[in-house]
Amino acid sequence: MKQLKILKIGGKVLESEQQLNDLLDAFVSWDGWKILVHGGGKAATKLATQLGIKAQMIDGRRITDEAMLEIVTMVYAGQINKKIVAELQKRNCNALGLSGADGNLIKAHKRVVRTIDYGYAGDIDAVDTERLTQLLELGFTPVFCALTHDGNGQILNTNADTISSALGVALAPYYQTEILYCFDKAGVLTNPKEEDSVIPELHPDNFESYKQRGIISDGMIAKLENAFAAIDQQVDRVRLGSVYSLLNNSDTKIVKNS
Amino acid sequence: MKQLKILKIGGKVLESEQQLNDLLDAFVSWDGWKILVHGGGKAATKLATQLGIKAQMIDGRRITDEAMLEIVTMVYAGQINKKIVAELQKRNCNALGLSGADGNLIKAHKRVVRTIDYGYAGDIDAVDTERLTQLLELGFTPVFCALTHDGNGQILNTNADTISSALGVALAPYYQTEILYCFDKAGVLTNPKEEDSVIPELHPDNFESYKQRGIISDGMIAKLENAFAAIDQQVDRVRLGSVYSLLNNSDTKIVKNS
Repeated sequence: MKQLKILKIGGKVLESEQQLNDLLDAFVSWDGWKILVHGGGKAATKLATQLGIKAQMIDGRRITDEAMLEIVTMVYAGQINKKIVAELQKRNCNALGLSGADGNLIKAHKRVVRTIDYGYAGDIDAVDTERLTQLLELGFTPVFCALTHDGNGQILNTNADTISSALGVALAPYYQTEILYCFDKAGVLTNPKEEDSVIPELHPDNFESYKQRGIISDGMIAKLENAFAAIDQQVDRVRLGSVYSLLNNSDTKIVKNS
Repeated sequence: MKQLKILKIGGKVLESEQQLNDLLDAFVSWDGWKILVHGGGKAATKLATQLGIKAQMIDGRRITDEAMLEIVTMVYAGQINKKIVAELQKRNCNALGLSGADGNLIKAHKRVVRTIDYGYAGDIDAVDTERLTQLLELGFTPVFCALTHDGNGQILNTNADTISSALGVALAPYYQTEILYCFDKAGVLTNPKEEDSVIPELHPDNFESYKQRGIISDGMIAKLENAFAAIDQQVDRVRLGSVYSLLNNSDTKIVKNS
């Protein structure tokens, strides 16, 4: 079975030329098929501020009204996606920038309003694995931004972590799939103030124990439950770390019970 | 030989919901392979103004400094490209949004400075026809925005007319290729103030005669010479018109001498 690595990048790495270069240098050197997924929330908030549009957040989640959708479409699919694609091409990696609308690769629906109206936020319904594997087999390296569509002409803002895990789960039957979440922490930490307190390996048993002892914080639990859900659906391994902890193999690995 | 139609859209059609919808409805109904190419200068100028950046033009050509490159990348590859892709998907056309950097499909170099420094403007060196035909044969409808790259990490602003004709010339050996330029005039006019003075057919002989009599205006001559150059390089036919003159077949057709 061929290997597939899905790298999700977000946070500081998108703001630091040096970190991005180091990460992309490593990415192109990896064996097997590769997919990159990126967000860009900070740059979107910056552009919104310049345009006098107020970014609305509830519980750390963005509310995407029409003006904000226009902004994230420009920033994610334009500014950041094309920068990464051009940087990968420079490294002789045949990157292909995509939103979920392109090739109808990721279909979603506008999030149903329960207590909070998230606006044009998309919840994923389907990944077209046949089309996506065709592109991989042609030698393209897909670079997805955090946008999907509803098939009815509407672009939808969609969390990049969720896109990464949906792609991983969809492709896991065809490839030995690993998802790498690159974020601002060195991994899952037992002390959130100490970057050297990384838990090297998490599996359902010790995760349960860390949770019960209150060692893993609330914000991380959702991320990890998402990761374990991917593992349950044939994804081989999920890794969480910063650029350098991932490159130095000192990140957190999430696996099935050994 | 399979048919290929390359439709370039610019000007008012990108500003008018109705015109764009009518044109896309027609586009998806055409037989054969299709490629869409779009600009977006007006929307880019609008965003620049909102951000307090002055759009510089010399002889109707944009000077692309670093700030303007950032803007056209957001507007062309983000805002406009994803809107068109989502609208085509709505019509069950499997659109794939692209810049020249994606898939390394269109390589260019930064325009050499002679008398005017156009900044980050790209002059096209090569179209990867093999990759592009692979995407067409998979059933994708490429939607190119007016951006290319230099293969060294630099995105370049590149005239959408020029991209259309470069694609047409590159693909003409493989498909019976037609290029349709959709702009704000009903076609090539003998009286620029009268939209009903369209010249139905232009070939090298009558073009020469119109030029000598001063009937075809300066601004149109460069566009037409570009079109005749494409015809000389195996492109079957070039059409120039507005949304409705193209749809009603009352546009200007440029052909070889009959």
